[in-house]
Amino acid sequence: MITSPGNARIKAVVQLKQKAKARREMKAFLVEGIKLFLEAPVERIREVYISESFSCPDKEARDAVWDKLGRMHFETVSEAVFEKISDTCTPQGILCVMEAYHYTLPDLLRPEKPLLLLLENIQDPGNLGTMIRTGEGAGIDGVILSGDTVDPGNPKTVRATMGSIYRVPFLCTENLPDTIRELKDSGIRIYAAHLQGTVNYDACDYRGGSAFLIGNEAKGLRRESAALADQYMKIPMAGKVESLNAGIAAALLMYEAARQRRNV
Amino acid sequence: MITSPGNARIKAVVQLKQKAKARREMKAFLVEGIKLFLEAPVERIREVYISESFSCPDKEARDAVWDKLGRMHFETVSEAVFEKISDTCTPQGILCVMEAYHYTLPDLLRPEKPLLLLLENIQDPGNLGTMIRTGEGAGIDGVILSGDTVDPGNPKTVRATMGSIYRVPFLCTENLPDTIRELKDSGIRIYAAHLQGTVNYDACDYRGGSAFLIGNEAKGLRRESAALADQYMKIPMAGKVESLNAGIAAALLMYEAARQRRNV
Repeated sequence: MITSPGNARIKAVVQLKQKAKARREMKAFLVEGIKLFLEAPVERIREVYISESFSCPDKEARDAVWDKLGRMHFETVSEAVFEKISDTCTPQGILCVMEAYHYTLPDLLRPEKPLLLLLENIQDPGNLGTMIRTGEGAGIDGVILSGDTVDPGNPKTVRATMGSIYRVPFLCTENLPDTIRELKDSGIRIYAAHLQGTVNYDACDYRGGSAFLIGNEAKGLRRESAALADQYMKIPMAGKVESLNAGIAAALLMYEAARQRRNV
Repeated sequence: MITSPGNARIKAVVQLKQKAKARREMKAFLVEGIKLFLEAPVERIREVYISESFSCPDKEARDAVWDKLGRMHFETVSEAVFEKISDTCTPQGILCVMEAYHYTLPDLLRPEKPLLLLLENIQDPGNLGTMIRTGEGAGIDGVILSGDTVDPGNPKTVRATMGSIYRVPFLCTENLPDTIRELKDSGIRIYAAHLQGTVNYDACDYRGGSAFLIGNEAKGLRRESAALADQYMKIPMAGKVESLNAGIAAALLMYEAARQRRNV
């Protein structure tokens, strides 16, 4: 059992928790909790840490956890050490180091008529996770993130995806405008929710290859990215609402696309 | 200038920040920041606190703030005192004590075909605020909250409403099932997103008086409330998503109703 927070491996895990740079360098990210452990693809699990008091009130989940643990190496750590590596207030006592995902643009463009989410400079980790979760529900084919968007390996993002991080392809691009141009060259139409939009979001046709461009929570889209959109739409807002939460706007657009594609 | 955190008024403000019970007893809630101050209805502002270093980089907003302050009494407080009363990490240096709202069910039922949101045991304050903000955008007529839902006067909720707290009528009910029965007696149809739903949410007709029943983030709706729904619907989910975030689900339902009502 590891009882020292000074242990080199524990220090590395703490780095993975705290720093996007460490996650990038080690090509890894952390997942925490029973649900995320149970859904984790075995071949991507590098290390598993269990707190000495680990328990799970739900018998079925507990059996599933021990069954999965029986098929891999894991490390028991003291309560104090687990608190160091955990990102939650009430840790469930199980945490894995996962091999990072490396999708390429062709991976995201494999479907015949891809539905994509393009995120520019999204800053709230929970909001990003929720967008990935909602995106899986709406059936999108991938998420493209600008280099200044919060790291999808951020523990708060991973937790908010509720497991969708394992299933929704995503990639980060250092040059979002260039990537948008590549998408356009591949026949994908770029739709941006924008204050200058005059067409309602439900009046556009998303049944072909489509990508929704969503900007920063407070500042919206950069001019250069917005200028590349094929179509500006608006989400009608009653009352005095000036904008919707970025995660809500993304959800409305992705589910409108899903609705249209369902009703073809 | 108030410089002592022991000042009786400051202590009362801290209570309003921290405790729903204090907000209930004093019939008040706090709003913080420039945007929420500027949008605050003057007749509801009880007290205004400004930090001694208050400044606002945007000239237009700054002028508007001082113009509004010129028409009311305000109290300057030291940095340290402001940090005590503030709920944010980077305070903007302006905070008001507001008179609480007291809407009644007839207020919410005034429109001919009301569109309502019914929330049972929602626990995340930010999520509640986002639902109120999205609700205003979708044009709902009010929000009804079960007694065990987070207090809408919670500072995190108020902040997340981005000002919609001033405009969306809401009320708390100690007995949600009874309130649902009253709504039904008034001709409102109750729709619940539910795992047992077989009809897609976009296949129901929300153009008449309609209320969406949303349950706790983790546990969903209580059996007694769910049993009162006129219709269970499902939000189709691709992949392995088991549920959507409660705020996202509410947004999809409210905006689907808005879409139908727009296209009448």
